[in-house]
Amino acid sequence: MGELRVRSVLVTGANRGIGLGLVQHLLGLPNPPEWVFAACRDPKGQRAQELQNLASKHPNLVIIPLEVTKPASIKAAAASVGERLKDSGLNLLINNAGMLVYKTLDTETQEDMAQVYATNTIGPLLLSQEFLPLLKKAAQGSPGSGLSCSKAAIINISSVGGSIKEVHMWKAAQCVSYRCSKAALNMLTKCQSLGYREHGILCAVFHPGWVQTDMGNTAGDKPPVTVDESVGGMLKVISSLSEKDTGTFLDWEGKVVPW
Amino acid sequence: MGELRVRSVLVTGANRGIGLGLVQHLLGLPNPPEWVFAACRDPKGQRAQELQNLASKHPNLVIIPLEVTKPASIKAAAASVGERLKDSGLNLLINNAGMLVYKTLDTETQEDMAQVYATNTIGPLLLSQEFLPLLKKAAQGSPGSGLSCSKAAIINISSVGGSIKEVHMWKAAQCVSYRCSKAALNMLTKCQSLGYREHGILCAVFHPGWVQTDMGNTAGDKPPVTVDESVGGMLKVISSLSEKDTGTFLDWEGKVVPW
Repeated sequence: MGELRVRSVLVTGANRGIGLGLVQHLLGLPNPPEWVFAACRDPKGQRAQELQNLASKHPNLVIIPLEVTKPASIKAAAASVGERLKDSGLNLLINNAGMLVYKTLDTETQEDMAQVYATNTIGPLLLSQEFLPLLKKAAQGSPGSGLSCSKAAIINISSVGGSIKEVHMWKAAQCVSYRCSKAALNMLTKCQSLGYREHGILCAVFHPGWVQTDMGNTAGDKPPVTVDESVGGMLKVISSLSEKDTGTFLDWEGKVVPW
Repeated sequence: MGELRVRSVLVTGANRGIGLGLVQHLLGLPNPPEWVFAACRDPKGQRAQELQNLASKHPNLVIIPLEVTKPASIKAAAASVGERLKDSGLNLLINNAGMLVYKTLDTETQEDMAQVYATNTIGPLLLSQEFLPLLKKAAQGSPGSGLSCSKAAIINISSVGGSIKEVHMWKAAQCVSYRCSKAALNMLTKCQSLGYREHGILCAVFHPGWVQTDMGNTAGDKPPVTVDESVGGMLKVISSLSEKDTGTFLDWEGKVVPW
């Protein structure tokens, strides 16, 4: 299990929580990426302040405006990333942007179900479609025949809350729209692993732990996992993934999570 | 494993395929239900002709107009069913209505993803919410403390195509929107089983087999399972379900399907 070495990586939902933690850890690697693309909805807004501070210190960090539910915004983001990368591809796409709505089985609405699915499931599908040419290019430009995240990979951030077997923390938070969207994201990842293997792209889905973020903190007690532990763990696991891991559901410590 | 005995049952998507087969089998039982509610989008249209013919012979069959993506339509259906049932509840809700769009991972669109989810996943959620008072009433009016489909149950019709472990028939039909919606429906069923157990309502999800229906016939070779085999099998399994089966994913022969 070595240190992650990638030339370029894009993280969505990068202005706070796990997304911001991923960007910070990537920039702090002994061999940081040449390009870290940090995508968020409003790069100039107050909520992206930390990302802006980071960008002023790290010339390899590029903040990209992105609304994952808007195809035109995704297209513009891919074009902007492609221009910077010139002839090389994108090694790693981390679909981290997500949302959670606190409703119960009884109070869940059609609107929330649709909106959460659009963000948590359809977003990662559209992002992956739009960045596919850049991911393919990265795979083609990398030596070796096996799959790895240093070569080309899509990492989707899901949750054990989306494990149908576990239905983790049901009593604390029913959140049916979230659970359904994450189960669907797990299925999407499995489909992507089957469809993109021939292009040399590894696809895996992660449970980041129950983490001390704005989202994690709203679920009741204090979450047991810090952003640093979650992100450090995931990047370590990501660096170790190979052919046999494509299409799997892993937690931040590398343990397999049941579907 | 006895014969199914229920006083009342509602089947959605009842004008053709598996839905129509379920209605025919229910009407043909030695002890048929007092009420079989057959819901479909256009009860007076050409595609509901067989249902209309059946209704002219079976006074216990009531055709109900229902569009599962329209909350107002669901409300009206529940009111109409409630009026007929008077003081008794609804024993069995079978969420069978569904759709499938043939797209690949590369050609899947935001619109198809949203529409298929609205029909296959959000529909069953909204139906179950709206019919919950009638299901609760049926549970309260039935003797015994365990769960069973004769008492009160929600049966969701999913597919092994929605099994994340199996991703059945990927090479023949990628259909990502369908697979994601069915994985999400499986999650919904698990959530419903946890939330509705205290109300005495059993919840399970079925893979009906790859069946000779309009939907099944479009997937390539001739499907191996007839509507009669699928529906007869499912009703036999449904009749045998008890407390321990709530929240499970079963096929038409009663075998457990992996999530």
